[in-house]
Amino acid sequence: MAYFDAASAAPLHPVARQALTASLDEGWADPARLYREGRKARLLLDAAREAAAEAIGCRADEVVFTPSGTRALHSGIAGASAGRRRTGRHLIVSAVEHSSVLHSAEVFEAGGGTVTRVAVSRTGAVTPSAYEAALRPDTALACLQSANHEVGTVQPVAEVAEVCRAAGVPLLVDAAQSLGWGPVEGGWSLLAASAHKWGGPAGVGLLVVRKGVRFAAQGPVDERESGRAPGFENIPAIVAAVASLRAVRAEAAREAVRLRELTERIRARVPRTVADVEVVGDPERRLPGIVTFSCLYVDGEALLHELDRAGFSVSSGSSCTSSTLTPSHVLKAMGVLSEGNVRVSLPAGTAEADVERFLAVLPEAVAGVREKLGAPAPVTAPRAGEPAGELVVDSLGKRCPVPVIELAKVFGEVPVGGTVRVLSDDEAARLDIPAWCEMRGQEYVGEEPAERGTAYLVRRVS
Amino acid sequence: MAYFDAASAAPLHPVARQALTASLDEGWADPARLYREGRKARLLLDAAREAAAEAIGCRADEVVFTPSGTRALHSGIAGASAGRRRTGRHLIVSAVEHSSVLHSAEVFEAGGGTVTRVAVSRTGAVTPSAYEAALRPDTALACLQSANHEVGTVQPVAEVAEVCRAAGVPLLVDAAQSLGWGPVEGGWSLLAASAHKWGGPAGVGLLVVRKGVRFAAQGPVDERESGRAPGFENIPAIVAAVASLRAVRAEAAREAVRLRELTERIRARVPRTVADVEVVGDPERRLPGIVTFSCLYVDGEALLHELDRAGFSVSSGSSCTSSTLTPSHVLKAMGVLSEGNVRVSLPAGTAEADVERFLAVLPEAVAGVREKLGAPAPVTAPRAGEPAGELVVDSLGKRCPVPVIELAKVFGEVPVGGTVRVLSDDEAARLDIPAWCEMRGQEYVGEEPAERGTAYLVRRVS
Repeated sequence: MAYFDAASAAPLHPVARQALTASLDEGWADPARLYREGRKARLLLDAAREAAAEAIGCRADEVVFTPSGTRALHSGIAGASAGRRRTGRHLIVSAVEHSSVLHSAEVFEAGGGTVTRVAVSRTGAVTPSAYEAALRPDTALACLQSANHEVGTVQPVAEVAEVCRAAGVPLLVDAAQSLGWGPVEGGWSLLAASAHKWGGPAGVGLLVVRKGVRFAAQGPVDERESGRAPGFENIPAIVAAVASLRAVRAEAAREAVRLRELTERIRARVPRTVADVEVVGDPERRLPGIVTFSCLYVDGEALLHELDRAGFSVSSGSSCTSSTLTPSHVLKAMGVLSEGNVRVSLPAGTAEADVERFLAVLPEAVAGVREKLGAPAPVTAPRAGEPAGELVVDSLGKRCPVPVIELAKVFGEVPVGGTVRVLSDDEAARLDIPAWCEMRGQEYVGEEPAERGTAYLVRRVS
Repeated sequence: MAYFDAASAAPLHPVARQALTASLDEGWADPARLYREGRKARLLLDAAREAAAEAIGCRADEVVFTPSGTRALHSGIAGASAGRRRTGRHLIVSAVEHSSVLHSAEVFEAGGGTVTRVAVSRTGAVTPSAYEAALRPDTALACLQSANHEVGTVQPVAEVAEVCRAAGVPLLVDAAQSLGWGPVEGGWSLLAASAHKWGGPAGVGLLVVRKGVRFAAQGPVDERESGRAPGFENIPAIVAAVASLRAVRAEAAREAVRLRELTERIRARVPRTVADVEVVGDPERRLPGIVTFSCLYVDGEALLHELDRAGFSVSSGSSCTSSTLTPSHVLKAMGVLSEGNVRVSLPAGTAEADVERFLAVLPEAVAGVREKLGAPAPVTAPRAGEPAGELVVDSLGKRCPVPVIELAKVFGEVPVGGTVRVLSDDEAARLDIPAWCEMRGQEYVGEEPAERGTAYLVRRVS
């Protein structure tokens, strides 16, 4: 069995387990109490805060422990935007943020604010100039992830922070995917992270609010954690979170090299052993352990099931939308193929042999799914002498990847210059039909509303 | 050493520790994932939810795990009141609820709602008729604790639920202090609780929303926990919380009898061995393990320090306001003496010998604090033949219990019929001067604004 989904949750680090069980006896009492048990708990909490601050590169009194990374983001965005309400009600986020950020932005909009969603390149990266262009005199807050959770692309945080700082706008960085690898560079104002992403226990998030950043905590008043995270502190888990952060940091430089080599192997090998695959995300500026690819004519969930049977735990699309039928917002923003999407995220310590075994198993797993779905053979050469006409493919009511498969199946019949009109009511088609055209070197003409669903027009050019 | 502050946080139950460490290996993955590790985590979570539902007496799909009891209350009140926004914007709470509830009520008011705070008797209990009188056509929600966290008084929850049900208003019950002792009776609509109060780990709260109760979760959308508790689930802690709930429930009937006898001993013995003590809270309808008393002429914090030195961990006043200078809102609402307040809350398994030792140590501890503060000797008989005049005591700038001490010191000089005017800017004086009068059989005339602070008028009647 090999677990390759560290970007969802990393297995508990042995140091986290040890610290957790060791502090259960000392860390259960209320740290606000002055008696012996309370003082012991307070000492543990204070020491953890100091150590966390050192790992982050901030002051201890800037660190707030929250119950999760999601709550850190929710509270951070709500508090920082409310703190600058007088400046204005404009928020900037990238289009590929974690759903916690995007859902916070929706709440901000519902409350009368406006949101700019900064577009990304085909590799998933924003540009500092796009953030600069998005800044307005009424911008209360800008948010940017340090690295993308789905494709591993590293964002230019320090440069964006500089642009924001010049405009006097605080930048909140979602460092959930990167904090285990190292501190976030640059002059950011707020930072959020999640312990279970680096091998800490569940139940611990981090919110850092730099001194001088205006912050108005929302929701009912509570005295814990400087009034920024209500509820009784989970000290044993906090201690374990911080201890494991230090432990993974100690191994980070060496492990980053090793995992980067392993993911590079996947990036290079998969397109050679599996036909019709698109590897997505930045090939250079990326996290060491994440590699993501999409397979044409493949149902992502079926492929995950095949891989699970073969002993590999990977995920598909966005972690928070995988149970819905819409394609991942990240892949959508990047404009890449979404069907048959697989994210491999290697935990620290992944054995080379497991990666090799994965590479050996993958082609057959993909072939199996394609066979079940009746995926088409490679497109045949166009027949000569036929008039250029229009062929209609009715894929209404059929889910990804069927519309693309049906398009590909008829394409052999289409003469050069002829068009195919694919009728589909599946959201993924909007992304995958253009992606198919790009992969096949055919022309994507565009979409238009149909009686039911949408018509996607493709012209055969070769 | 004896820890007598279970109402703040109970020491981790051995079953909780065992379940927590056992489930660290199986419960760390994302339960939303379909691969092997995710399925294992999901099984643990589902089993915990079933077991929690059984202990509460509800359906499994009505149970939501939150990161703390505080968050359960915050989310429960926000969601239930928003769910009935069309009915109206009126909220009912008792005056002695936990600060999490009262702070939620403040947010509700800040958002344009109105709040009725139901008064309590001198024992800390509400009456069903007071809730009935508070109900209005626009009442969205009523909240009531199952038992008070500071004085242990049990509230008539089933009767209040009946009154609310007749009016079509949902009742949210804060069962934080009682759930370990047994399910909450009656037709409540929502229920909140906190695992670390019954010996479970920190990081787990419970929110139960009965089917059919209108509920509109507030804050950013999140798919976890039926959309009612955002953030990655803390499964090992949830498993430990539920396992320990079952364990304490198995011991509850026997342990309740034992602890009730021990707290009864404290209730009876303290007034006999310590002068000028008021035992507060209902003597009959109360939790087994909590007993609270206030000592005249005593600084609560100094007494806690003395008791800590003697090896006893107890708390004073409201857990959430002990670091501020205002007296506990619970004691205030009850109209009882607040100075020198001590709450003893015995954890399950408390040894009889420890309680006896506490009773032996307490008189000396109180005497020590009184001596340091220069507490007065008993009031002497009034001198005969002196004209009734007014004596002014200037206690401005002096903190509880000094104003009462200074009142008592001059009282010997006052003839029957004479009055003392105590000038004080300490909030506790408003509570403690009338309480002193009641304890001494003297007449509390009332208060009036003074140039600085408030003047409290006391007339000598014997």
